[in-house]
Amino acid sequence: MKNILLTIEYDGTNFSGWQRQPGQRTVQGELERVLSTLCAQPISLHGTSRTDAGVHALGQRASFQADFAIPVANLQMAANHLLSSSPAGVRSLGKGAPGDLRIKKVEEVAPSFHARFDAWGKTYRYRIRNSQVPDIFARNYCYIVPQRLDLAAMNRAAEDVVGRHDFKCFQAAGGKELESTVRTIYRIEVKEEGPNSQGLMAEDRGITIEVTGDGFLYNMVRILTGTLVEVGLGKKLPEAMSEILASQDRQKAGHTAPPQGLYLKEIYYREEDVQ
Amino acid sequence: MKNILLTIEYDGTNFSGWQRQPGQRTVQGELERVLSTLCAQPISLHGTSRTDAGVHALGQRASFQADFAIPVANLQMAANHLLSSSPAGVRSLGKGAPGDLRIKKVEEVAPSFHARFDAWGKTYRYRIRNSQVPDIFARNYCYIVPQRLDLAAMNRAAEDVVGRHDFKCFQAAGGKELESTVRTIYRIEVKEEGPNSQGLMAEDRGITIEVTGDGFLYNMVRILTGTLVEVGLGKKLPEAMSEILASQDRQKAGHTAPPQGLYLKEIYYREEDVQ
Repeated sequence: MKNILLTIEYDGTNFSGWQRQPGQRTVQGELERVLSTLCAQPISLHGTSRTDAGVHALGQRASFQADFAIPVANLQMAANHLLSSSPAGVRSLGKGAPGDLRIKKVEEVAPSFHARFDAWGKTYRYRIRNSQVPDIFARNYCYIVPQRLDLAAMNRAAEDVVGRHDFKCFQAAGGKELESTVRTIYRIEVKEEGPNSQGLMAEDRGITIEVTGDGFLYNMVRILTGTLVEVGLGKKLPEAMSEILASQDRQKAGHTAPPQGLYLKEIYYREEDVQ
Repeated sequence: MKNILLTIEYDGTNFSGWQRQPGQRTVQGELERVLSTLCAQPISLHGTSRTDAGVHALGQRASFQADFAIPVANLQMAANHLLSSSPAGVRSLGKGAPGDLRIKKVEEVAPSFHARFDAWGKTYRYRIRNSQVPDIFARNYCYIVPQRLDLAAMNRAAEDVVGRHDFKCFQAAGGKELESTVRTIYRIEVKEEGPNSQGLMAEDRGITIEVTGDGFLYNMVRILTGTLVEVGLGKKLPEAMSEILASQDRQKAGHTAPPQGLYLKEIYYREEDVQ
């Protein structure tokens, strides 16, 4: 029995999220279909993160166990070939869909390894286009905020999020009832970057939020981002962040930022990498 | 009778190009459908440039003449509303399609004005992702060239393209038999820029070619780009460019670069803007 760990990249635009669902094109569904063909048996993947529809990944991880004949070294190229020529993808989707999912790495790991349970933490990136000039090229890849955001205020508010806290205020209704809503955020950075679009207009202003933690509640990064955006717009004071956290009240936090700005960037399997 | 000039932006990924075609989703077709509804009569657009499938536009122009009741000032918002909620787009295409076409400006112009015949020139942008690291986010928006390109050599070759020349060597077979293949290129610039992708990896290298001329033959910018890429790869010498032009032979020029890297950037209606 082999135990295989995949590193996966996808453009979430034309997927109904990670999780397998009948009649829907999902990342897990596409990968399992292709791997089941190559391994000549039904493959069931354990993904690290159940990303929502429209959410992207630069470094999603998933593991599976199976005995199969194809050499591990050939699996990546064979799977990517099937994924990019997928008839299901071409038939039911827009012309931009083929090529929107790719395995970046295939590793054989120890028998007991599990992609989700063995993760020490992960980093999400959230991208905002902060410009009054509309730009259709940003529509699937950024949160578009036309009013100018106060970056310094957003960074002040973000400082209070770092550390071990009960993040219940940042958990969406509809998420699983978890035993604990306590998580540790190791790092969070709000920074200005180059133009966030293919259009590349001079007026473009891109803002990126990167947050690393030991785990995240359902919609936590999107609600955290929505709250930081409201601070950046002056609707909330930076000093309010610690009160919001202490309240444990979803109503006190900001809105849920849209999925298309969110990127699952990296998963960490060594404690020293995450802290 | 009003004469209306539109400035239009589109992501060409999910369009079968500009030109109206039965049973295909095209930019002209979508715009004419929406404008015919709003103007309560069949509208026929004169576009400046018949961009191919997959080619994008930041500033396409098109004009039409009609008598209609809706105030000109309301036309842009009403048309964009219909375009972004288009049931045809949602039904037959990927989730990324809605919102991929937008009117940026509507102007009333003089009765004799024609979007194509009155243009003094235009600028195209061509975007290359020059990195060995694959990146799915670039697939619809750049030409992906993994081998390192020699930017200085490409700029030397580009210098010889500027001026008034017979560009027959850069005209695709299948284009219209034109009376003349002489055109004037006013400016061409090959420059390195930031990462050409939503993925924004540190290894990314973006190269942009911008070329301004009084007109372009069929596939001219894509063949010019393919030739410059071959110079950048060392397959052709920069000094060969003037010989290629003089040969008037398509076989001497380079390959046709793919459509997804091409952006129609701007159209000029005043002589002083183009030169």
